Amino acid sequence: MGDEVGIIGGTGPLGRGLALRFAKARMSVRIGSRDPERAREIVAGLADRLGEDAARVVGVGNADATEAEMVVVAVPFEGLRPALEPLADRLRDRIVVSAVNPLAFDGDGPYSLVVPEGSAAELCVALLPGARVAAAFHSLSARQLGRLDEPMDDDVLVLSDDEDAMARTVELAARIDGVDGLAAGPLRLAAPLEGLTAALIAVNQRNRCHAGVRLTRVPR
Amino acid sequence: MGDEVGIIGGTGPLGRGLALRFAKARMSVRIGSRDPERAREIVAGLADRLGEDAARVVGVGNADATEAEMVVVAVPFEGLRPALEPLADRLRDRIVVSAVNPLAFDGDGPYSLVVPEGSAAELCVALLPGARVAAAFHSLSARQLGRLDEPMDDDVLVLSDDEDAMARTVELAARIDGVDGLAAGPLRLAAPLEGLTAALIAVNQRNRCHAGVRLTRVPR
Repeated sequence: MGDEVGIIGGTGPLGRGLALRFAKARMSVRIGSRDPERAREIVAGLADRLGEDAARVVGVGNADATEAEMVVVAVPFEGLRPALEPLADRLRDRIVVSAVNPLAFDGDGPYSLVVPEGSAAELCVALLPGARVAAAFHSLSARQLGRLDEPMDDDVLVLSDDEDAMARTVELAARIDGVDGLAAGPLRLAAPLEGLTAALIAVNQRNRCHAGVRLTRVPR
Repeated sequence: MGDEVGIIGGTGPLGRGLALRFAKARMSVRIGSRDPERAREIVAGLADRLGEDAARVVGVGNADATEAEMVVVAVPFEGLRPALEPLADRLRDRIVVSAVNPLAFDGDGPYSLVVPEGSAAELCVALLPGARVAAAFHSLSARQLGRLDEPMDDDVLVLSDDEDAMARTVELAARIDGVDGLAAGPLRLAAPLEGLTAALIAVNQRNRCHAGVRLTRVPR
Protein backbone atom coordinates (compact mmCIF):
# COMPACT_ATOMS: atom_id res chain seq x y z
CA MET A 1 0.00 0.00 0.00
CA GLY A 2 0.97 3.60 -0.34
CA ASP A 3 2.75 5.48 2.32
CA GLU A 4 0.74 8.69 2.24
CA VAL A 5 -2.60 9.45 3.85
CA GLY A 6 -4.72 12.58 3.69
CA ILE A 7 -7.23 13.45 6.37
CA ILE A 8 -10.20 15.62 5.44
CA GLY A 9 -11.15 17.43 8.60
CA GLY A 10 -7.87 16.40 10.11
CA THR A 11 -7.72 19.22 12.66
CA GLY A 12 -10.40 17.73 14.96
CA PRO A 13 -9.57 15.38 17.84
CA LEU A 14 -9.91 12.13 15.85
CA GLY A 15 -8.09 13.54 12.82
CA ARG A 16 -5.20 14.79 14.94
CA GLY A 17 -4.97 11.48 16.77
CA LEU A 18 -4.92 9.48 13.56
CA ALA A 19 -2.34 11.87 12.07
CA LEU A 20 -0.03 11.37 15.06
CA ARG A 21 -0.27 7.59 14.86
CA PHE A 22 0.18 7.44 11.07
CA ALA A 23 3.19 9.75 11.30
CA LYS A 24 4.70 7.54 14.01
CA ALA A 25 4.17 4.63 11.59
CA ARG A 26 6.47 6.50 9.18
CA MET A 27 3.66 7.50 6.83
CA SER A 28 3.40 10.92 5.22
CA VAL A 29 0.30 12.71 6.43
CA ARG A 30 -1.65 15.60 4.92
CA ILE A 31 -3.85 17.14 7.60
CA GLY A 32 -6.65 18.93 5.77
CA SER A 33 -8.95 21.68 6.94
CA ARG A 34 -11.41 24.11 5.39
CA ASP A 35 -8.85 26.68 6.50
CA PRO A 36 -5.29 25.77 5.43
CA GLU A 37 -3.85 28.28 7.90
CA ARG A 38 -5.65 26.47 10.74
CA ALA A 39 -4.22 23.16 9.47
CA ARG A 40 -0.70 24.60 9.51
CA GLU A 41 -1.19 25.83 13.07
CA ILE A 42 -2.36 22.39 14.19
CA VAL A 43 0.62 20.76 12.52
CA ALA A 44 2.96 23.21 14.22
CA GLY A 45 1.34 22.29 17.52
CA LEU A 46 1.96 18.56 16.95
CA ALA A 47 5.62 18.97 16.00
CA ASP A 48 7.07 18.69 19.50
CA ARG A 49 5.34 15.38 20.11
CA LEU A 50 6.46 13.91 16.80
CA GLY A 51 10.16 14.79 16.89
CA GLU A 52 11.81 13.78 13.62
CA ASP A 53 8.51 12.30 12.39
CA ALA A 54 7.09 15.83 12.24
CA ALA A 55 8.82 16.38 8.90
CA ARG A 56 6.33 14.05 7.20
CA VAL A 57 3.21 15.93 8.39
CA VAL A 58 1.86 18.95 6.53
CA GLY A 59 -1.18 21.15 7.04
CA VAL A 60 -3.19 21.87 3.88
CA GLY A 61 -6.67 22.70 2.62
CA ASN A 62 -9.08 19.79 2.34
CA ALA A 63 -8.72 19.78 -1.46
CA ASP A 64 -4.95 19.30 -1.15
CA ALA A 65 -5.48 16.54 1.41
CA THR A 66 -7.15 14.52 -1.35
CA GLU A 67 -3.84 14.29 -3.22
CA ALA A 68 -2.75 11.48 -0.91
CA GLU A 69 -3.20 7.87 -1.97
CA MET A 70 -5.61 7.07 0.85
CA VAL A 71 -8.08 9.66 2.08
CA VAL A 72 -9.71 9.50 5.51
CA VAL A 73 -12.76 11.64 6.31
CA ALA A 74 -12.80 12.79 9.93
CA VAL A 75 -15.08 15.83 9.89
CA PRO A 76 -17.89 16.20 12.43
CA PHE A 77 -21.10 14.75 10.98
CA GLU A 78 -22.74 18.15 10.50
CA GLY A 79 -19.76 19.20 8.40
CA LEU A 80 -19.77 16.15 6.16
CA ARG A 81 -21.92 17.43 3.30
CA PRO A 82 -20.25 20.87 3.01
CA ALA A 83 -16.80 19.30 3.23
CA LEU A 84 -17.33 16.62 0.60
CA GLU A 85 -19.55 18.30 -1.98
CA PRO A 86 -16.74 20.49 -3.42
CA LEU A 87 -14.41 17.46 -3.52
CA ALA A 88 -16.61 15.06 -5.49
CA ASP A 89 -14.68 15.37 -8.75
CA ARG A 90 -11.32 14.94 -7.04
CA LEU A 91 -12.46 11.84 -5.16
CA ARG A 92 -13.91 9.93 -8.10
CA ASP A 93 -12.32 6.43 -8.28
CA ARG A 94 -10.43 7.13 -5.05
CA ILE A 95 -10.50 5.16 -1.80
CA VAL A 96 -12.27 7.31 0.78
CA VAL A 97 -12.47 6.04 4.35
CA SER A 98 -15.28 7.47 6.45
CA ALA A 99 -14.45 7.69 10.14
CA VAL A 100 -17.49 9.88 10.76
CA ASN A 101 -19.77 9.14 13.71
CA PRO A 102 -23.19 10.79 13.47
CA LEU A 103 -23.58 11.51 17.17
CA ALA A 104 -25.13 14.19 19.31
CA PHE A 105 -25.21 14.90 23.04
CA ASP A 106 -27.86 16.09 25.48
CA GLY A 107 -28.38 15.93 29.22
CA ASP A 108 -28.62 12.13 29.03
CA GLY A 109 -25.29 11.81 27.24
CA PRO A 110 -24.40 10.72 23.72
CA TYR A 111 -26.83 9.29 21.18
CA SER A 112 -26.89 8.34 17.50
CA LEU A 113 -28.41 10.60 14.92
CA VAL A 114 -30.75 9.06 12.35
CA VAL A 115 -29.20 9.49 8.90
CA PRO A 116 -31.64 9.28 5.98
CA GLU A 117 -29.01 7.55 3.83
CA GLY A 118 -28.58 4.91 6.57
CA SER A 119 -25.21 6.00 7.93
CA ALA A 120 -22.52 8.63 7.51
CA ALA A 121 -20.61 6.19 5.31
CA GLU A 122 -23.60 5.74 3.02
CA LEU A 123 -24.01 9.52 2.90
CA CYS A 124 -20.39 9.63 1.65
CA VAL A 125 -21.40 7.25 -1.14
CA ALA A 126 -24.29 9.55 -2.06
CA LEU A 127 -22.05 12.64 -2.02
CA LEU A 128 -19.12 11.09 -3.92
CA PRO A 129 -20.22 9.37 -7.15
CA GLY A 130 -17.64 6.85 -8.28
CA ALA A 131 -15.60 6.98 -5.08
CA ARG A 132 -14.61 3.69 -3.44
CA VAL A 133 -15.95 4.28 0.04
CA ALA A 134 -14.92 2.31 3.11
CA ALA A 135 -15.83 2.89 6.75
CA ALA A 136 -13.37 2.43 9.61
CA PHE A 137 -11.79 3.92 12.75
CA HIS A 138 -15.15 4.74 14.39
CA SER A 139 -14.40 3.31 17.78
CA LEU A 140 -10.84 4.58 18.27
CA SER A 141 -10.55 6.95 21.20
CA ALA A 142 -9.13 10.28 20.05
CA ARG A 143 -7.64 10.75 23.51
CA GLN A 144 -5.91 7.38 23.44
CA LEU A 145 -4.61 7.97 19.90
CA GLY A 146 -2.91 11.05 21.27
CA ARG A 147 -1.05 9.14 23.97
CA LEU A 148 1.91 8.24 21.82
CA ASP A 149 3.77 6.62 24.69
CA GLU A 150 1.10 3.89 24.88
CA PRO A 151 0.33 1.47 22.04
CA MET A 152 -3.35 1.16 21.14
CA ASP A 153 -5.18 -2.07 22.00
CA ASP A 154 -8.01 -1.97 19.48
CA ASP A 155 -9.56 -3.73 16.54
CA VAL A 156 -10.77 -1.59 13.67
CA LEU A 157 -13.70 -3.16 11.86
CA VAL A 158 -13.66 -2.18 8.21
CA LEU A 159 -16.67 -2.08 5.92
CA SER A 160 -16.84 -1.57 2.18
CA ASP A 161 -18.75 -2.75 -0.86
CA ASP A 162 -15.38 -2.73 -2.70
CA GLU A 163 -13.18 -5.65 -1.61
CA ASP A 164 -9.94 -3.95 -2.65
CA ALA A 165 -10.84 -0.74 -0.83
CA MET A 166 -11.68 -2.84 2.23
CA ALA A 167 -8.37 -4.73 2.06
CA ARG A 168 -6.35 -1.55 1.73
CA THR A 169 -8.20 0.07 4.60
CA VAL A 170 -7.48 -3.00 6.74
CA GLU A 171 -3.78 -2.48 5.92
CA LEU A 172 -4.02 1.23 6.71
CA ALA A 173 -5.56 0.49 10.12
CA ALA A 174 -2.86 -2.05 10.87
CA ARG A 175 -0.19 0.61 10.43
CA ILE A 176 -1.16 1.96 13.83
CA ASP A 177 0.82 0.34 16.64
CA GLY A 178 -1.50 -1.97 18.58
CA VAL A 179 -4.34 -1.91 16.07
CA ASP A 180 -5.59 -4.81 13.96
CA GLY A 181 -7.82 -4.16 10.97
CA LEU A 182 -10.60 -6.66 10.38
CA ALA A 183 -12.62 -6.88 7.18
CA ALA A 184 -16.20 -7.07 8.37
CA GLY A 185 -18.68 -6.67 5.53
CA PRO A 186 -20.64 -4.32 3.30
CA LEU A 187 -21.32 -0.65 3.98
CA ARG A 188 -24.93 -1.29 4.89
CA LEU A 189 -23.57 -2.47 8.27
CA ALA A 190 -22.09 0.96 8.98
CA ALA A 191 -24.91 2.44 11.07
CA PRO A 192 -24.36 0.17 14.09
CA LEU A 193 -20.58 0.60 13.94
CA GLU A 194 -21.03 4.37 13.90
CA GLY A 195 -23.65 4.23 16.65
CA LEU A 196 -21.59 1.94 18.85
CA THR A 197 -19.34 4.91 19.48
CA ALA A 198 -22.20 6.49 21.45
CA ALA A 199 -22.29 3.44 23.74
CA LEU A 200 -18.49 3.56 24.13
CA ILE A 201 -18.62 7.23 25.08
CA ALA A 202 -21.33 6.40 27.63
CA VAL A 203 -19.12 3.64 29.07
CA ASN A 204 -16.24 6.12 29.19
CA GLN A 205 -18.32 8.66 31.08
CA ARG A 206 -19.42 6.05 33.64
CA ASN A 207 -15.95 4.60 34.12
CA ARG A 208 -13.69 7.58 33.49
CA CYS A 209 -11.82 5.69 30.82
CA HIS A 210 -11.17 5.70 27.07
CA ALA A 211 -12.44 2.29 26.07
CA GLY A 212 -11.70 0.46 22.87
CA VAL A 213 -13.05 -2.65 21.20
CA ARG A 214 -11.39 -6.01 20.58
CA LEU A 215 -13.03 -9.02 19.00
CA THR A 216 -12.33 -12.36 20.63
CA ARG A 217 -12.15 -15.76 18.93
CA VAL A 218 -11.17 -14.25 15.56
CA PRO A 219 -8.22 -15.85 13.74
CA ARG A 220 -5.36 -13.30 13.47
CA MET B 1 -29.50 -11.19 43.16
CA GLY B 2 -31.98 -14.00 42.66
CA ASP B 3 -30.97 -17.39 41.53
CA GLU B 4 -33.71 -18.03 39.02
CA VAL B 5 -34.01 -16.84 35.45
CA GLY B 6 -36.78 -17.36 32.93
CA ILE B 7 -36.17 -17.19 29.20
CA ILE B 8 -39.07 -16.22 26.96
CA GLY B 9 -38.38 -17.89 23.65
CA GLY B 10 -35.78 -20.03 25.35
CA THR B 11 -35.89 -22.84 22.81
CA GLY B 12 -34.00 -20.94 20.08
CA PRO B 13 -30.21 -21.06 19.72
CA LEU B 14 -29.47 -18.04 21.93
CA GLY B 15 -32.04 -19.06 24.54
CA ARG B 16 -30.67 -22.60 24.75
CA GLY B 17 -27.11 -21.32 24.98
CA LEU B 18 -27.94 -18.89 27.78
CA ALA B 19 -29.92 -21.61 29.59
CA LEU B 20 -26.93 -23.95 29.49
CA ARG B 21 -24.57 -21.32 30.86
CA PHE B 22 -26.94 -20.12 33.58
CA ALA B 23 -27.57 -23.72 34.66
CA LYS B 24 -23.80 -24.34 34.81
CA ALA B 25 -23.64 -21.24 37.04
CA ARG B 26 -25.97 -23.10 39.44
CA MET B 27 -28.99 -20.96 38.60
CA SER B 28 -32.48 -22.37 38.17
CA VAL B 29 -33.69 -21.85 34.60
CA ARG B 30 -37.18 -21.81 33.13
CA ILE B 31 -36.96 -22.28 29.39
CA GLY B 32 -40.16 -20.84 27.96
CA SER B 33 -41.81 -21.45 24.62
CA ARG B 34 -45.17 -20.77 22.99
CA ASP B 35 -45.48 -24.55 23.10
CA PRO B 36 -44.65 -26.00 26.55
CA GLU B 37 -44.26 -29.48 25.07
CA ARG B 38 -41.57 -28.15 22.75
CA ALA B 39 -39.83 -26.55 25.73
CA ARG B 40 -39.85 -29.87 27.59
CA GLU B 41 -38.37 -31.64 24.56
CA ILE B 42 -35.58 -29.06 24.34
CA VAL B 43 -34.84 -29.41 28.04
CA ALA B 44 -34.71 -33.20 27.67
CA GLY B 45 -32.23 -32.72 24.84
CA LEU B 46 -29.96 -30.57 27.01
CA ALA B 47 -29.93 -32.97 29.96
CA ASP B 48 -26.94 -35.07 28.87
CA ARG B 49 -24.74 -32.02 28.53
CA LEU B 50 -25.74 -30.61 31.90
CA GLY B 51 -25.31 -33.72 34.06
CA GLU B 52 -26.44 -32.97 37.61
CA ASP B 53 -27.13 -29.34 36.66
CA ALA B 54 -30.02 -30.57 34.48
CA ALA B 55 -32.23 -30.86 37.54
CA ARG B 56 -32.46 -27.07 37.76
CA VAL B 57 -33.75 -26.58 34.18
CA VAL B 58 -37.41 -26.91 33.30
CA GLY B 59 -39.37 -26.43 30.08
CA VAL B 60 -42.54 -24.36 30.42
CA GLY B 61 -44.88 -22.09 28.51
CA ASN B 62 -43.73 -18.49 28.09
CA ALA B 63 -46.23 -17.32 30.73
CA ASP B 64 -44.72 -19.69 33.30
CA ALA B 65 -41.22 -18.51 32.36
CA THR B 66 -42.19 -15.07 33.67
CA GLU B 67 -42.47 -16.49 37.21
CA ALA B 68 -38.68 -16.30 37.55
CA GLU B 69 -37.10 -13.30 39.25
CA MET B 70 -35.24 -12.21 36.14
CA VAL B 71 -36.80 -12.62 32.70
CA VAL B 72 -34.75 -12.67 29.50
CA VAL B 73 -36.45 -12.27 26.11
CA ALA B 74 -34.73 -14.31 23.40
CA VAL B 75 -37.42 -14.69 20.74
CA PRO B 76 -36.66 -13.95 17.08
CA PHE B 77 -37.52 -10.34 16.31
CA GLU B 78 -40.58 -11.21 14.22
CA GLY B 79 -41.95 -13.13 17.20
CA LEU B 80 -41.43 -10.34 19.72
CA ARG B 81 -44.83 -8.65 19.55
CA PRO B 82 -46.93 -11.85 19.61
CA ALA B 83 -44.79 -13.27 22.42
CA LEU B 84 -44.94 -10.24 24.70
CA GLU B 85 -48.44 -8.86 24.15
CA PRO B 86 -50.16 -11.60 26.17
CA LEU B 87 -47.58 -11.23 28.97
CA ALA B 88 -47.87 -7.48 29.56
CA ASP B 89 -49.82 -7.78 32.83
CA ARG B 90 -47.48 -10.43 34.23
CA LEU B 91 -44.39 -8.38 33.41
CA ARG B 92 -45.49 -5.09 34.96
CA ASP B 93 -42.86 -3.89 37.46
CA ARG B 94 -40.60 -6.79 36.48
CA ILE B 95 -37.05 -6.70 35.15
CA VAL B 96 -37.20 -7.81 31.51
CA VAL B 97 -33.92 -8.18 29.60
CA SER B 98 -34.18 -7.96 25.83
CA ALA B 99 -31.56 -10.03 24.02
CA VAL B 100 -33.42 -9.60 20.74
CA ASN B 101 -31.49 -8.66 17.61
CA PRO B 102 -33.66 -7.31 14.79
CA LEU B 103 -31.69 -8.87 11.94
CA ALA B 104 -32.44 -10.32 8.55
CA PHE B 105 -30.37 -12.10 5.91
CA ASP B 106 -30.20 -11.97 2.14
CA GLY B 107 -27.66 -12.90 -0.51
CA ASP B 108 -25.27 -10.25 0.85
CA GLY B 109 -25.41 -11.64 4.39
CA PRO B 110 -26.87 -10.24 7.59
CA TYR B 111 -28.27 -6.75 8.03
CA SER B 112 -30.19 -4.74 10.64
CA LEU B 113 -33.89 -4.18 10.36
CA VAL B 114 -35.22 -0.68 10.93
CA VAL B 115 -37.48 -0.73 14.01
CA PRO B 116 -40.00 2.13 14.21
CA GLU B 117 -39.62 2.24 18.01
CA GLY B 118 -35.83 2.63 17.58
CA SER B 119 -34.75 -0.86 18.64
CA ALA B 120 -36.12 -4.20 19.77
CA ALA B 121 -35.49 -3.12 23.37
CA GLU B 122 -37.54 0.03 22.91
CA LEU B 123 -40.29 -2.05 21.30
CA CYS B 124 -40.28 -4.10 24.52
CA VAL B 125 -40.86 -0.87 26.45
CA ALA B 126 -43.80 -0.04 24.19
CA LEU B 127 -45.29 -3.54 24.56
CA LEU B 128 -44.77 -3.83 28.33
CA PRO B 129 -46.10 -0.82 30.23
CA GLY B 130 -44.51 -0.55 33.65
CA ALA B 131 -41.86 -3.20 33.00
CA ARG B 132 -38.27 -2.38 33.88
CA VAL B 133 -36.61 -3.12 30.57
CA ALA B 134 -32.90 -3.70 30.09
CA ALA B 135 -31.02 -4.79 26.98
CA ALA B 136 -28.09 -7.22 27.03
CA PHE B 137 -26.53 -10.41 25.63
CA HIS B 138 -26.83 -9.25 21.99
CA SER B 139 -23.32 -10.10 20.91
CA LEU B 140 -22.92 -13.50 22.59
CA SER B 141 -22.43 -16.29 20.06
CA ALA B 142 -25.11 -18.93 20.53
CA ARG B 143 -22.68 -21.51 19.21
CA GLN B 144 -19.99 -20.52 21.69
CA LEU B 145 -22.47 -20.47 24.58
CA GLY B 146 -23.19 -24.11 23.76
CA ARG B 147 -19.54 -25.14 24.05
CA LEU B 148 -19.63 -25.78 27.77
CA ASP B 149 -16.07 -27.09 27.83
CA GLU B 150 -14.79 -23.60 26.90
CA PRO B 151 -15.30 -20.49 29.04
CA MET B 152 -16.68 -17.48 27.21
CA ASP B 153 -14.38 -14.49 26.60
CA ASP B 154 -16.92 -11.71 26.20
CA ASP B 155 -18.16 -8.46 27.62
CA VAL B 156 -21.90 -7.93 27.79
CA LEU B 157 -22.84 -4.27 27.48
CA VAL B 158 -26.01 -3.58 29.43
CA LEU B 159 -28.44 -0.76 28.76
CA SER B 160 -31.41 0.41 30.78
CA ASP B 161 -33.20 3.57 31.81
CA ASP B 162 -33.59 1.95 35.28
CA GLU B 163 -30.30 1.91 37.18
CA ASP B 164 -31.32 -0.97 39.44
CA ALA B 165 -32.47 -3.07 36.49
CA MET B 166 -29.16 -2.30 34.78
CA ALA B 167 -27.13 -3.28 37.86
CA ARG B 168 -28.99 -6.55 38.28
CA THR B 169 -28.60 -7.38 34.61
CA VAL B 170 -24.86 -6.70 34.90
CA GLU B 171 -24.80 -9.24 37.76
CA LEU B 172 -26.83 -11.72 35.73
CA ALA B 173 -24.40 -11.48 32.82
CA ALA B 174 -21.44 -11.96 35.14
CA ARG B 175 -22.85 -15.31 36.29
CA ILE B 176 -21.68 -16.76 32.98
CA ASP B 177 -18.13 -18.11 33.18
CA GLY B 178 -15.84 -15.79 31.23
CA VAL B 179 -18.36 -12.97 30.83
CA ASP B 180 -18.17 -9.50 32.36
CA GLY B 181 -21.25 -7.31 32.46
CA LEU B 182 -20.68 -3.60 31.84
CA ALA B 183 -23.27 -0.91 32.54
CA ALA B 184 -23.24 1.20 29.41
CA GLY B 185 -26.12 3.66 29.33
CA PRO B 186 -29.76 4.32 28.50
CA LEU B 187 -31.95 2.19 26.24
CA ARG B 188 -31.82 4.72 23.43
CA LEU B 189 -28.34 3.29 22.70
CA ALA B 190 -29.80 -0.16 21.99
CA ALA B 191 -30.10 0.04 18.20
CA PRO B 192 -26.35 -0.01 17.53
CA LEU B 193 -25.75 -2.78 20.07
CA GLU B 194 -28.44 -4.86 18.40
CA GLY B 195 -27.15 -4.03 14.92
CA LEU B 196 -23.54 -4.77 15.81
CA THR B 197 -24.53 -8.42 15.86
CA ALA B 198 -24.99 -8.20 12.09
CA ALA B 199 -21.37 -7.06 11.72
CA LEU B 200 -20.20 -9.85 14.05
CA ILE B 201 -22.06 -12.45 12.00
CA ALA B 202 -20.46 -11.02 8.85
CA VAL B 203 -17.02 -11.29 10.51
CA ASN B 204 -17.87 -14.87 11.49
CA GLN B 205 -18.83 -15.77 7.94
CA ARG B 206 -15.59 -14.31 6.55
CA ASN B 207 -13.37 -15.91 9.16
CA ARG B 208 -15.25 -19.13 10.02
CA CYS B 209 -15.30 -18.19 13.67
CA HIS B 210 -17.71 -17.25 16.45
CA ALA B 211 -16.42 -13.85 17.47
CA GLY B 212 -17.19 -12.01 20.66
CA VAL B 213 -16.59 -8.48 21.93
CA ARG B 214 -14.30 -7.26 24.69
CA LEU B 215 -13.78 -3.64 25.65
CA THR B 216 -10.21 -2.60 26.35
CA ARG B 217 -9.03 0.06 28.82
CA VAL B 218 -12.11 -0.30 31.03
CA PRO B 219 -11.51 -0.63 34.77
CA ARG B 220 -12.70 -4.09 35.95
